[in-house]
Amino acid sequence: MPELTTNRLSVYLRCLDEVAGQGVRTISSTGLAQRLDLNAAQIRKDLAHFGEFGVRGVGYAVEDLRQHLRAILGLDRRHRVVIVGAGNLGLALADYGGFRSDGFDIVALVDSAPEKIGTRSRGGVPVGDAAELASLVTRERLDIAVIAVPPAAAQQVVDQLVKAGISAILTFSPAPVRVPEHVRVRRVDLSVQLEGLSYFLASERDEANATR
Amino acid sequence: MPELTTNRLSVYLRCLDEVAGQGVRTISSTGLAQRLDLNAAQIRKDLAHFGEFGVRGVGYAVEDLRQHLRAILGLDRRHRVVIVGAGNLGLALADYGGFRSDGFDIVALVDSAPEKIGTRSRGGVPVGDAAELASLVTRERLDIAVIAVPPAAAQQVVDQLVKAGISAILTFSPAPVRVPEHVRVRRVDLSVQLEGLSYFLASERDEANATR
Repeated sequence: MPELTTNRLSVYLRCLDEVAGQGVRTISSTGLAQRLDLNAAQIRKDLAHFGEFGVRGVGYAVEDLRQHLRAILGLDRRHRVVIVGAGNLGLALADYGGFRSDGFDIVALVDSAPEKIGTRSRGGVPVGDAAELASLVTRERLDIAVIAVPPAAAQQVVDQLVKAGISAILTFSPAPVRVPEHVRVRRVDLSVQLEGLSYFLASERDEANATR
Repeated sequence: MPELTTNRLSVYLRCLDEVAGQGVRTISSTGLAQRLDLNAAQIRKDLAHFGEFGVRGVGYAVEDLRQHLRAILGLDRRHRVVIVGAGNLGLALADYGGFRSDGFDIVALVDSAPEKIGTRSRGGVPVGDAAELASLVTRERLDIAVIAVPPAAAQQVVDQLVKAGISAILTFSPAPVRVPEHVRVRRVDLSVQLEGLSYFLASERDEANATR
């Protein structure tokens, strides 16, 4: 399934969590579309991949669809996450409030700087020795790694992680990294976000010029 | 234009930068599709929004298309960015190497903690007083703001920024924020990324079970 589709499933789930919190029991694809500013046909198509969740003319049962999406997204079991790099970014991520509280446990940070090893993030995540990453992965049954090291070190860290058995990696390094086929890497590219805002400012400017 | 489309334009531009660096002069939509693991028809449709860039049977002129995409994305002028919040995340973002060097200047950080005001990030970005945010926006002609404050403070910061005339905001706060219609907010939601990896791990597991 393409990355953009799984991203949309996350967005649907977030929306369902919200409406469930408001006591809503059923919601139509049109209702979801309005809340999310998406196309209703797209939503029906995305959800149809996974079986028949909706009832024609009634919509989706919110609680059922939530459970299904959670299972599809693998959120019916917890994940154990290590963050590699205890610099500003790694420390910020360790304590980031945005990780869905019920799915991902940030188990440890690791770093290679002796003065950092043995310390903790403000939120209490311990910083281990990067040299012992492989044994940490096994001992702590870690299944997801987040890379927050300088670009020059990223490939070496990825190689270590893959060798240690990690097959799911989230990287903030702007440099692309090479991995074997069985490993999935997601890259958070902040430039893409800023360029989206730049596009918005440019189109606003064009509009202002056009109506002058 | 929907957010996912502008995101793809950024991705196309990044790919064109790469092939231009390798000396490639023309590229077909199929060539782009292969490099990006996307659908060629989707690429043609996205690019057709903006006029006729390609020549049938030949492909796109790489340099022309780059210039066009840069202009569409508003990257033909520089942007001046302020980061609100000089905690770990704000400091990490200020020095983040991933901002396209030729488009976005991180001009300043601001914070409300007296001990931070007057200091600088490791990369040299000065930390100003959050109380003077409005005058900073005017004086420094800032046009994009990045929000890296705790969730509880995010709405108040957004209100201040909007009042100061900022209309493009990137937030890392997991809480949604309210803005007037003329303001664009992009939210980097790290949970969506982790959930994409969780989906991958779950589908791997299902496959392993199926082939057992």
